[in-house]
Amino acid sequence: MIDYRRLRVALLGAGSVGSQVADLLLAHSDELADRAGAALELAGIAVRDLDAPRDVELPRDLLTTDADTLIVGSDIVIELMGGIEPARSHILAALNSGADVVTGNKALLATHGAEIFDAADQVGASVYYEAAVAGAIPIIRPLRDSLAGDRVQRIMGIVNGTTNYILDRMDSEGAEMADILADAQRLGYAEADPTTDIEGFDAAQKAAILASLAFHTSVPLDAVHREGITSITKAEMDAARHAGYVIKLLAVCERVTGRDVDEAISVRVYPALIRRDHPLASVHGVNNAVFVEAEAAGNLMFYGAGAGGVQTASAVLGDVVSAARRHIAGGAGVGESTRANLPVLDIGHVVTRYQVTLEVDDRPGVLARVAGILSEGRVSIATVEQTIQPGPDGTAGTGSARLVIGTHKAVEQDLDETVQRLAADDVVVRVVSVLRVEGD
Amino acid sequence: MIDYRRLRVALLGAGSVGSQVADLLLAHSDELADRAGAALELAGIAVRDLDAPRDVELPRDLLTTDADTLIVGSDIVIELMGGIEPARSHILAALNSGADVVTGNKALLATHGAEIFDAADQVGASVYYEAAVAGAIPIIRPLRDSLAGDRVQRIMGIVNGTTNYILDRMDSEGAEMADILADAQRLGYAEADPTTDIEGFDAAQKAAILASLAFHTSVPLDAVHREGITSITKAEMDAARHAGYVIKLLAVCERVTGRDVDEAISVRVYPALIRRDHPLASVHGVNNAVFVEAEAAGNLMFYGAGAGGVQTASAVLGDVVSAARRHIAGGAGVGESTRANLPVLDIGHVVTRYQVTLEVDDRPGVLARVAGILSEGRVSIATVEQTIQPGPDGTAGTGSARLVIGTHKAVEQDLDETVQRLAADDVVVRVVSVLRVEGD
Repeated sequence: MIDYRRLRVALLGAGSVGSQVADLLLAHSDELADRAGAALELAGIAVRDLDAPRDVELPRDLLTTDADTLIVGSDIVIELMGGIEPARSHILAALNSGADVVTGNKALLATHGAEIFDAADQVGASVYYEAAVAGAIPIIRPLRDSLAGDRVQRIMGIVNGTTNYILDRMDSEGAEMADILADAQRLGYAEADPTTDIEGFDAAQKAAILASLAFHTSVPLDAVHREGITSITKAEMDAARHAGYVIKLLAVCERVTGRDVDEAISVRVYPALIRRDHPLASVHGVNNAVFVEAEAAGNLMFYGAGAGGVQTASAVLGDVVSAARRHIAGGAGVGESTRANLPVLDIGHVVTRYQVTLEVDDRPGVLARVAGILSEGRVSIATVEQTIQPGPDGTAGTGSARLVIGTHKAVEQDLDETVQRLAADDVVVRVVSVLRVEGD
Repeated sequence: MIDYRRLRVALLGAGSVGSQVADLLLAHSDELADRAGAALELAGIAVRDLDAPRDVELPRDLLTTDADTLIVGSDIVIELMGGIEPARSHILAALNSGADVVTGNKALLATHGAEIFDAADQVGASVYYEAAVAGAIPIIRPLRDSLAGDRVQRIMGIVNGTTNYILDRMDSEGAEMADILADAQRLGYAEADPTTDIEGFDAAQKAAILASLAFHTSVPLDAVHREGITSITKAEMDAARHAGYVIKLLAVCERVTGRDVDEAISVRVYPALIRRDHPLASVHGVNNAVFVEAEAAGNLMFYGAGAGGVQTASAVLGDVVSAARRHIAGGAGVGESTRANLPVLDIGHVVTRYQVTLEVDDRPGVLARVAGILSEGRVSIATVEQTIQPGPDGTAGTGSARLVIGTHKAVEQDLDETVQRLAADDVVVRVVSVLRVEGD
């Protein structure tokens, strides 16, 4: 047994991830010491309530409600409390005392990342946050280190397990969202209040973090365009399947060199159609995956469990070992590079493909009229499919038809205005849906 | 423009990867400097022949045939010559002079890895080798860093693009290997002498590197069991497809806690059956993928281009940026941990599932006889399928039938002995094939 230098580790938070981290730190201490080159001594676990029930039984004498005192003198501080305060203050205090910080706090990084990375730079400490995006999947380190010599062109991520579970079951079972959501809540895959997940807030935080890292640019959360999945119906899922697509909630981070800008980025979260033969289409259940297109490396995909206490704890512990190695090696920490400082495009300037579904009058000349409006609006048609709507008894026509229009690449603003003009036109009964198509 | 500290970079080798690395280093120098926090100054490129044709035009004044002189005084040495010597001597000289080393040399690392990592440890330098396994796919860094706090249980990798291309086309087109191989050679996906790829030598080198890293154990190349794909016929591919499987050349690295051993590892390369719904089954063409099962993280997959000059150059440049950051930060390098030092099991002790295809006499009692031999040999049957062989004219029976037996998990040695007993038995006309089944 080697007599390793001891590093004092403070853990803040003992929720589903924190309690697993504590458990693994204690259970595998010898192995972790060999890998880190240092003995990782868990000095204490700061919790709000000493008597709260936990996923894993933790030694009572390690628990404390006094995080401030615990942080003092620690070499590595693991923040798994979540939320903005007091997590932010604790992390800043830890960095200022010379500790390296490991965190899984996506909400904090997406809103106060720049402040935290600056604080780390000032003192030469490091902040590790592999657990903040896509749970157990190594994606932060590959983007920060492995692709540091390359230029990322686009990231498309399935980064929220709850919404992927819901959309995947809607797709495979032909069910309505409400039924699946209730089931997901019963199984613990969705919160009692699912807003953060199904409205895309969680995915938007992760998109901001991924884009900041990939494009070496500080991307504020409010620059991320966000749409949730609540508008997706069984009918839309069925139509997507029929057309060879599946609907996924995607976080898209893209380098753009458009007609008005030299170089910019676009960061957006929305449900989108993706072809069934795309690798992201085969990501099922609560799994996550991040598809990266880089200039030299080509297409890469990282796939695995996007959440779960023990799975995410794996990512945290990897970061703890990295922090320990760096702490032992000495030298300055690796700062976040935001030197590219690219502008973030408004959603109106984004260029992508669309699928527009219209209910129209079933009479001659309607298609020509619709095509004319699209053409005037600078939206070019790639495919059209027309189906006659059956009457309520399933036999006679209702006088209306359905047009499913796939567009070539168009500017979002042009598409928006064109859809408004279509909606106002006499021949259009209603605009059934507008969905982006990604990954072609 | 920031006035960065300059780091002297020496490049050894200007083949398909090396010339792309030089090109990207020169073209993206400003961006790379921002990311590395240091100006990466390409001091020279050592080549064997100054006038050899190259994939990319390189500045003539950077070329030199004197690698020894080029290495002196360099901060980072990139070795992309391949082969054992003089690559090994150059790397050792570089490390001993205090340089960090980036290499993509799998043959060297699989045979002299321990020597090189020891030399780096002695002087506190680092060796980076992301490009040595699976081209552009970040897999070394995730294994070394991201999963450093976890326990890898199994790795199954498609790590050779040439064989995956051949098997994938045999599967999708129902073609024989010889035809596809000729085509692959024409397209540049296979070498004129394809032995290294199709006999599994290349995959075995990568398996040794992956296993060493994942299990913190020095795995010598000759401890890797290796079988190539030349025994795979169209008939076997068709039978696999019929049974819901696909045949892939897999590099399997497994932590084993068997009946005779407390803890050991097994490292093996062979063509194996894998279920069509396994994520590895959808890895097509020359792509690579590495599927990792870890105790805490669960299942992860890393997918992308496994070869190609510019793709692999991306991995090299990521390592160069990491090396530069470390060089600037100072402190000791991260050594390779081989402290677990697990024994490597002989193939005879490996436990897996098998599919045994027999041609047998078509008469009553044969199945019972075969089942008896399997049972005596401690091989338990999971599934049996029997088909009558049509006669040459397609109408009458030939007197023989085909038995496809899927086994439960069995010990390789037991299976081997049992198959020998089957082959010698009167009722068995011949053993058509024996294939392992992985990933269930």
